[in-house]
Amino acid sequence: MTTDLDRLCINTIRTLAMDAVQKAGNGHPGAPMGAAPMAYALWTRFLRHNPANPEWPDRDRFLLSAGHASMLLYSLLHLSGYDLSLDDLKSFRQWGSRTPGHPEHGHTPGVEATTGPLGQGFATGIGMAIAERFLAGHFNRPGHTIVDHRVYAIVSDGDLMEGVTSEAASLAGTLGLGKLVYLYDDNDISIEGSTDLAFIEDVGKRFEAYGWQVQQADGNDCESVQRALALAEAETTRPSLIVAKTVIAFGSPNKAGTAAAHGAALGVDEVRLTKQALGWPEDASFLVPPDVLAEFRKALDRGKALEADWEERFGAYARAFPAEARLWQTVMDGELPEGWDAALPVFASEGGAVATRIASGKVLNAAVQGIPTLMGGAADLAPSTETTLKDEADFARDEWGGHNLHFGVREHAMAAAVNGLALHGGVVPYGATFLVFSDYLRPALRLAALMQAHSIFVFTHDSIGLGEDGPTHQPIEHLASLRAIPGLTVLRPADANETVACWRQALTRKGPSALILTRQGLPVLDDVALVSQGVARGAYVLADAAAPQVILIATGSEVSVALAAHALLTAKGIGARVVSLPSWELFEEQDAAYKESVLPAAVRARVSVEAAATFGWSRYVGDAGASVGVDRFGASAPGAVLLEELGITAANVAARAESVLNEIRTGGGPRGS
Amino acid sequence: MTTDLDRLCINTIRTLAMDAVQKAGNGHPGAPMGAAPMAYALWTRFLRHNPANPEWPDRDRFLLSAGHASMLLYSLLHLSGYDLSLDDLKSFRQWGSRTPGHPEHGHTPGVEATTGPLGQGFATGIGMAIAERFLAGHFNRPGHTIVDHRVYAIVSDGDLMEGVTSEAASLAGTLGLGKLVYLYDDNDISIEGSTDLAFIEDVGKRFEAYGWQVQQADGNDCESVQRALALAEAETTRPSLIVAKTVIAFGSPNKAGTAAAHGAALGVDEVRLTKQALGWPEDASFLVPPDVLAEFRKALDRGKALEADWEERFGAYARAFPAEARLWQTVMDGELPEGWDAALPVFASEGGAVATRIASGKVLNAAVQGIPTLMGGAADLAPSTETTLKDEADFARDEWGGHNLHFGVREHAMAAAVNGLALHGGVVPYGATFLVFSDYLRPALRLAALMQAHSIFVFTHDSIGLGEDGPTHQPIEHLASLRAIPGLTVLRPADANETVACWRQALTRKGPSALILTRQGLPVLDDVALVSQGVARGAYVLADAAAPQVILIATGSEVSVALAAHALLTAKGIGARVVSLPSWELFEEQDAAYKESVLPAAVRARVSVEAAATFGWSRYVGDAGASVGVDRFGASAPGAVLLEELGITAANVAARAESVLNEIRTGGGPRGS
Repeated sequence: MTTDLDRLCINTIRTLAMDAVQKAGNGHPGAPMGAAPMAYALWTRFLRHNPANPEWPDRDRFLLSAGHASMLLYSLLHLSGYDLSLDDLKSFRQWGSRTPGHPEHGHTPGVEATTGPLGQGFATGIGMAIAERFLAGHFNRPGHTIVDHRVYAIVSDGDLMEGVTSEAASLAGTLGLGKLVYLYDDNDISIEGSTDLAFIEDVGKRFEAYGWQVQQADGNDCESVQRALALAEAETTRPSLIVAKTVIAFGSPNKAGTAAAHGAALGVDEVRLTKQALGWPEDASFLVPPDVLAEFRKALDRGKALEADWEERFGAYARAFPAEARLWQTVMDGELPEGWDAALPVFASEGGAVATRIASGKVLNAAVQGIPTLMGGAADLAPSTETTLKDEADFARDEWGGHNLHFGVREHAMAAAVNGLALHGGVVPYGATFLVFSDYLRPALRLAALMQAHSIFVFTHDSIGLGEDGPTHQPIEHLASLRAIPGLTVLRPADANETVACWRQALTRKGPSALILTRQGLPVLDDVALVSQGVARGAYVLADAAAPQVILIATGSEVSVALAAHALLTAKGIGARVVSLPSWELFEEQDAAYKESVLPAAVRARVSVEAAATFGWSRYVGDAGASVGVDRFGASAPGAVLLEELGITAANVAARAESVLNEIRTGGGPRGS
Repeated sequence: MTTDLDRLCINTIRTLAMDAVQKAGNGHPGAPMGAAPMAYALWTRFLRHNPANPEWPDRDRFLLSAGHASMLLYSLLHLSGYDLSLDDLKSFRQWGSRTPGHPEHGHTPGVEATTGPLGQGFATGIGMAIAERFLAGHFNRPGHTIVDHRVYAIVSDGDLMEGVTSEAASLAGTLGLGKLVYLYDDNDISIEGSTDLAFIEDVGKRFEAYGWQVQQADGNDCESVQRALALAEAETTRPSLIVAKTVIAFGSPNKAGTAAAHGAALGVDEVRLTKQALGWPEDASFLVPPDVLAEFRKALDRGKALEADWEERFGAYARAFPAEARLWQTVMDGELPEGWDAALPVFASEGGAVATRIASGKVLNAAVQGIPTLMGGAADLAPSTETTLKDEADFARDEWGGHNLHFGVREHAMAAAVNGLALHGGVVPYGATFLVFSDYLRPALRLAALMQAHSIFVFTHDSIGLGEDGPTHQPIEHLASLRAIPGLTVLRPADANETVACWRQALTRKGPSALILTRQGLPVLDDVALVSQGVARGAYVLADAAAPQVILIATGSEVSVALAAHALLTAKGIGARVVSLPSWELFEEQDAAYKESVLPAAVRARVSVEAAATFGWSRYVGDAGASVGVDRFGASAPGAVLLEELGITAANVAARAESVLNEIRTGGGPRGS
């Protein structure tokens, strides 16, 4: 039965949301007000967490996929006893505050994932639920359950319209993720008005089609939500969706149930009227009645007991399985096990040409020997991206410990799930597809960068060199587009040994990385020490002359083209240097002296070579230099033909180098543009 | 009843696909072989088209969403009598051929859309079906039906896993697009193996939930497919999905029903065995039996009669409604009606600051007066993107002539649908969202560029200047990411009058455009002639000095920052020039003399100002220059605070200009990197 205290608690959430938005002058009051009862029911009766330790490994995860309802989450965090004060709530959406417009992971304690771009929270939660099952499969032992938690989310109409949600929901249904419980805040309103304008589908039926348990609930009635949550918890083989009918801006006499309450402050008068309607002191602001606080703060005692119980169980586990317990600690600390890299391969040129995707596959299969929680897969391209862990099982509903994820043709959900895997902790996740299809997953990749999640993206078939599949499959602008994202490390190795070194970076650096790999074979660079140390610094001198007149700067498959051009120039008596530049981000982290040693300012004759858009390369080639690249879409033809036709050849690079040298000799000034 | 001739026709498609893939050495034989019966049934019994005139306006549209099955389409085009020879089929996937690996619109006659990236064809078809209904709503008159066709597609498992498909399907169901008929090639196989690995949902039930008519058919049985197609045509208020069970690589003794047949040639031996199994002359290659050709080529007579009948009807229409007929001709020719721009606004600085999104809204509402088939909408952000045509109705199932599309929170399907609207012809379409969410629709935007479709994308809230919504909503890398796409015109106007000029470019240029607009108000530039002519050339001098020592280059909202910096520098006696650069693409199209007049090589002191990633700006600022930008994620705070905190201020720009000048004076050489 809903008590008066329950109602008071719910109205506290509502009024805090109204007040904070009103104080900020903008924000989204409607959703927190409508979803307050379900959030209250979930957070006080079901969610197993410890506000005093947001990092307790076996806590339930809660995601507010409808990130615009951030005041709902901030209110819950504050009321439940997380390290977020009422003053923090009062500085909602202000410079330097811990309560930004949308929840940001790593910025506010208790925020499990950055949300706001719709659909992302929904899909990220799938990854967290996979992580839970995977770790349970790996670490739990009979009588010793140390991994056992649920993933909850509140999702909105907008979330359910996004394609990434559909992808994730279908995947979750296929995998039978029974510990996933999502509350759908079904309020019939989106920004343009009634959801009927654009969204009349039968959501429940759709989710049943995906294999979910679907329940209807009255979102205004705590008891109704609680009953549904109890049945959702009882369901162990299907993810659960609770369709909870709510009223946006519940309580607001003039704005409840309207789009006007979605994304703007209610206004001083309407806030007052709403407080009247809710039986709230109309002049009070940011009011938290003491018994409300006491009721919510019971979470601290509950959480302490829950974690203590878990610690006890973990202690018994550690005594029974000390090695496993040590591994658990290591991976949950985000560390790699000692000696993880023992089996990493070394390649020799005698073996012939090796595609970097092939080398990458060998690295992955070696790395999993040292990193038992390395897992991932591809968006239905595992055979092409070489991302199958060959000695490992598939992750599946009867094989939770399996390492190989079959994401299906769902790039976007894959990337969001990889983020969820990384955020959960304990897992080193990767997701793979063709580079051109990185476009399909950019929103999730961007969030990985923003959150500095340790997500690894493997992008193969990285240029027109892939050949016959044609321009729809040939990336052009993608390298530039990825390099432009702050906080993402882009790694494009030139050969098999650089691939090993790039993977080392991806596995050990903070934040997300993108490995950019070829379909076609590339000559192996034999000087492994040079290559390894060079990759770690982002760029290095691979071939040189006594007094280089011109510098050829290349990445990936074009490094071998630059080396061939170097030979042509050398034969003509022109001193050239070849710089391999696998990672702009790593190179930019180096000190000025190192940069100058690789790219001396005095050598103005520079030619970049990359079978991709030249966009951005003027940074390294400078006013006097030139870029050999592909500033058009590709074409369908054998890769070698295409590279030749579009000028990615040693002869063309050498010729451009000579013309750059001539221009400098004849005194051509800096170009107009 | 399926006749021997039917079987022969179907096997001709199968063997052509096998042979072409085998000759190329790679490609996708399995899907054409499995889908041949349904394609045969559709193309010979239902599709209303005229192979002699692929541009007949009222033809049915056919999309091969599973673009990797391109040999299916090429076979159908050749056999039906399109201008595509058997020799063209023999040069499948070769340089310069008309039969690229995936179908390319504008490259091969009869290819309605470029497909291959999964889901795109599915969603693009939705746009074509909207275009048909919209034009029918506008042009048809009682007794005069000149717009009346269907949109068909063959879609695959992969298409149905993609999120964009879900978005588009839900939208199509909401709109009740009854003339959309999609055949689902349900072959249970994707690249990683059985679809059960990742895709066990009940697709039919899902589509029923979206409001589609769903039928099951035996895809190996023409008659079964025909019955379903007939019922689909009888259904007028719901889109139709025919779930046709097929066998990938049907007929191949060793590869049918396996992933091995998806993306690789069958091999010489297996091709031979398959021909044996199909009762085909095993040594024949690219064999088209004469009676098969005769049967398919009946399409020419049928098509001629269909078009002649339509021409007659159109003639009667033109006599009864001459003005409407002229407008029809104009818009179907891709032209804008004469005087279309008569009502475009002119802004004056006395009116105060104007956000470019607001100016854009005024342009749109003026333009629709002159362009009656201008239509579009937003991904549930119309009130924020200012893209509502205020005097026009919503496009809806009982209001086909309505101009305002409610796409829902479905950016990706929106962009694909906009492409479909543009490809259909007769419509000038636009789609809008926040710039940061351009990430959600990049795959469709890329295809617009590749196809040179006249799609217009309106991206507002274009920088950290949007303020409190925070880093999830603040674009940083997006301008660079869009500029890197070949064939896309990016337009970032500096004020209301530049906005008018940018819209003029978007409406009149070939290919897609992206308008990048502010949330916040900007001062109006009064010299309308200067602004209009300047925008048309991509960049122009907006403020100058007698002898400029330094050039400040800015776009969009930062032009006013540059003008303020110009004032600061002028006050200090430093001659500065301000260049407004609304479009890099337009500027790059100018001749060298114009470029030199705007950015004289002799002035090496240059500072770019853009509240976005500086990535790419070295191209214009050169070795001696500097870029003021935002190379980090934003934050949640009021926009003005944020711009100040992150250095997008006149004072900072002026200071950078001075330091650049000082460095040049003190003889700093070109930088190492």
